[in-house]
Amino acid sequence: MKLKVKFLGLEAGGKLIVILNQEDAEDLGIRSLGRVRLCSSQKELTAIVNITTRVVPKDYVGIYEEVRDSLDLKKDAELEVEVAKYPSSLQHIKNKLKGKKLSYEEFFEIVKDVVEGNLSEIELASFVTALHDFGLDLDESTSLTLAMVETGEKLKLNKKIICDKHSCGGAVGDKTTLLVVPIIAAAGLTIPKTSSRAITSAGGTADRAEVLMPVDLDLEEMKRVVEKTNGCIVWGGTLHLAPADDVFIQIEYPLSIDPLLLPSIMSKKKAVGANHLVIDIPCGRGTKVKTIEDADLLAKDFIELGKKLGINTRCAVTYGEQPLGYSIGPALEAREALEVLTRRKNLPDLIDKATDIAGILLEMTGKVDGKKSALEILKSGKAEEKFREIIFEQGGDSEIKPEEIEIGDYGLDIRSENFGLVLWVNNSGLTEVTRAAGAPKDKKAGIQLYKKIGNQVKKGEKLFTVYCEKSRKLERVRKVLEEEKIMGIGKRMEMLIHEVKEIPVYKKTFILER
Amino acid sequence: MKLKVKFLGLEAGGKLIVILNQEDAEDLGIRSLGRVRLCSSQKELTAIVNITTRVVPKDYVGIYEEVRDSLDLKKDAELEVEVAKYPSSLQHIKNKLKGKKLSYEEFFEIVKDVVEGNLSEIELASFVTALHDFGLDLDESTSLTLAMVETGEKLKLNKKIICDKHSCGGAVGDKTTLLVVPIIAAAGLTIPKTSSRAITSAGGTADRAEVLMPVDLDLEEMKRVVEKTNGCIVWGGTLHLAPADDVFIQIEYPLSIDPLLLPSIMSKKKAVGANHLVIDIPCGRGTKVKTIEDADLLAKDFIELGKKLGINTRCAVTYGEQPLGYSIGPALEAREALEVLTRRKNLPDLIDKATDIAGILLEMTGKVDGKKSALEILKSGKAEEKFREIIFEQGGDSEIKPEEIEIGDYGLDIRSENFGLVLWVNNSGLTEVTRAAGAPKDKKAGIQLYKKIGNQVKKGEKLFTVYCEKSRKLERVRKVLEEEKIMGIGKRMEMLIHEVKEIPVYKKTFILER
Repeated sequence: MKLKVKFLGLEAGGKLIVILNQEDAEDLGIRSLGRVRLCSSQKELTAIVNITTRVVPKDYVGIYEEVRDSLDLKKDAELEVEVAKYPSSLQHIKNKLKGKKLSYEEFFEIVKDVVEGNLSEIELASFVTALHDFGLDLDESTSLTLAMVETGEKLKLNKKIICDKHSCGGAVGDKTTLLVVPIIAAAGLTIPKTSSRAITSAGGTADRAEVLMPVDLDLEEMKRVVEKTNGCIVWGGTLHLAPADDVFIQIEYPLSIDPLLLPSIMSKKKAVGANHLVIDIPCGRGTKVKTIEDADLLAKDFIELGKKLGINTRCAVTYGEQPLGYSIGPALEAREALEVLTRRKNLPDLIDKATDIAGILLEMTGKVDGKKSALEILKSGKAEEKFREIIFEQGGDSEIKPEEIEIGDYGLDIRSENFGLVLWVNNSGLTEVTRAAGAPKDKKAGIQLYKKIGNQVKKGEKLFTVYCEKSRKLERVRKVLEEEKIMGIGKRMEMLIHEVKEIPVYKKTFILER
Repeated sequence: MKLKVKFLGLEAGGKLIVILNQEDAEDLGIRSLGRVRLCSSQKELTAIVNITTRVVPKDYVGIYEEVRDSLDLKKDAELEVEVAKYPSSLQHIKNKLKGKKLSYEEFFEIVKDVVEGNLSEIELASFVTALHDFGLDLDESTSLTLAMVETGEKLKLNKKIICDKHSCGGAVGDKTTLLVVPIIAAAGLTIPKTSSRAITSAGGTADRAEVLMPVDLDLEEMKRVVEKTNGCIVWGGTLHLAPADDVFIQIEYPLSIDPLLLPSIMSKKKAVGANHLVIDIPCGRGTKVKTIEDADLLAKDFIELGKKLGINTRCAVTYGEQPLGYSIGPALEAREALEVLTRRKNLPDLIDKATDIAGILLEMTGKVDGKKSALEILKSGKAEEKFREIIFEQGGDSEIKPEEIEIGDYGLDIRSENFGLVLWVNNSGLTEVTRAAGAPKDKKAGIQLYKKIGNQVKKGEKLFTVYCEKSRKLERVRKVLEEEKIMGIGKRMEMLIHEVKEIPVYKKTFILER
């Protein structure tokens, strides 16, 4: 069927979609979300069909920007439109829906269609849900991981040992990576670190690092920085390493499920060629993994999958019941990390965690006394020197001093209403307040803590300050603070946690960071 | 946040969706597919968020027609936009994803949000997939059915006994309902029959009936026809009986899964107040249910669910290996049904099936020798008389003769290539040919069969004729006929069905009719 193009001037979120008039669709015998083959004189592609009675008249095909660009269409162009074959990736998805195990080839076809935008949101959601419902065994996780690697770009470094670290997320104020990368690089090892921006948190490592230097490098630039300095801290989003993950995340987030946790993390690591990896699994209320038992089970899965992929993997189950250090929010955290690297501040928990993780990596690659070596590299200033090298090569100000990092002008002090000990910290509440203050978009927004668990507090004493870039954000911060208790102060824990009178009111608390 | 409206001039398929500029979305701290509360000076509602960098500028909110209509928005209006609460139906869906059983109240909240357009396609797809993966037990099926009934309109008739029949679909050329309804109504029983249009088939009962009379009645008109004649044959699509089903079907079709089969069918029956029901389960290759064992299991589920719903239910497992009668396509089938009702033609298989099903209904409501009574009503002309009454009350030509029903002008005869017996008929192939010919949209398109299983065929003898309204459709019919073998002619079945050399090429064959 020959149809004239009508440009809609809309994006379809990377998907290849066209809109047909109902009459033409019925004439073709195609339903909504079926697929058509579009042929121009030059090119052709398969697109998903939406159907309308109003927007697109009969004899026209409504074209989104993605299809227009892919087919390089001009105004007044005509397209030959025919019903397309049923993509075999859909048959594989349907098999997964029956609980069947899928092979590498089948996962590859699915992931390829995911990356190329050939699957509708309904099909993607069904696939992700089936993965959640039936789970993935070790062979399937391996196949899916490799399929995600093979459908993207890869970093090729001429090095025998390539280190990497990763946090499963949920630890509030976790600036560990900003210390681990320079320590490892200063030790002469290679660590091409890619990081994410915040999804549900108040800031990802990429958001923190961006306060100090550009992080949106392309793969060539990243390679140059690593070859020069042994390390880097860049945003993974523009590198096209395992790009299917970016699509899956869009589906997982609204569903609050995360069945692709292992393949997602490991595919990004495999794509940069890592062969020595430490996975940090923060553990505690408010983090992703709530109990040590769950953390151990997850660790076992990572280690097994690592073995299959040729990545020597160890896990660090870490304490995550309260923020690391005293800061939350990109600028405050970047400043705190720099204060530790420049030895201006001694923050035992942060230094401990960073040297623990760096130490494990050093021992995996042959050093003895890894933690001690890591601590020496930090204390000697070699880590600072390396960090400034990386900042310079990524295009930041390598001379920057901690006090030069700007923080939001509008502050709100929160004081204790009674005397006692800090008994607990509400981690997800802290994240919510920081996001209400404007983070991660407003980099200067955040929280400075003065008290942590176990500290003695007087009535009226400052517990923390919330900073905003924009004064109007303070209003929202106040509202969140009214609804959420952030710190528990008292002599001992109260016995009644809460009373359940009827059906509890649900709150979406879901950490997708991984 | 105050935002100016920008009308997009697009429909969102009944869903309440708005588009925010990325900057505003980040400022609100909301991600794609999150939810916002929109408040105008008069009204408010919750909508799902899509995010753009191009189409909608900062400080504007992009408005689809559904939201515009619901909020009654004028040009240059401003809306207060805030992050909305997490709907509790999503929590229930998430629980289903964990394999938990849901209560009536929980299904009700989900179905209500489905009907009101409050759930995104991703959320719907995930729910439908989870129902498919985990199944529904009897209590859940009951709850979901009742929730679907309660969120729609209901037909209220002042009758003690209300009959109904339903076919699970997949039988090609099945015009049984056109006979059963007048037989039952002529017997003095009430049968308010709603039917569907074709989804994946070449014609639904509503498509067939529409050749003879209007079928898109509203609930009041339907009630009037039934009160006058004891019966009707109307399209269910405009009646808002269990309307959630229409949304679920949109999701199930692209996924080729049908986990809502039982609640869908039974909710429509409950909504018209049926308390005596026969479910026809056609069984055979090319139908929905392939084996008698599967049909019996499905029958058991229908009967149990019926008991819970207060609907006395029996099932008829029927032979579905070839078309019923000799016609496929709305007009050809309407004509064939009328030929039987007017006693011009004796088609044993069609008469058999219609009087079997009518007979079961008659016996359920107290008659003895149901099949015999049904046959008498048909043979005596009482069924024809009743059928013409129904045609008249629904606004059709009650004097119509079979030969006045028009058939497509363009015919293509298919002849046998050899001598032998008809050994098998490819039912899904017949459907595909009929759809290629233009049905169900082109009502006059279809197939007239001359031979059926067991018939002797000479070389060159006509097997069937394909009719089209439009000559250009013949081209597509020829293409399908090249790819599909429709009838197997030979002395005996060949032993090799087919050879599998490598991964088989998949074909989407999925019957959603129910």
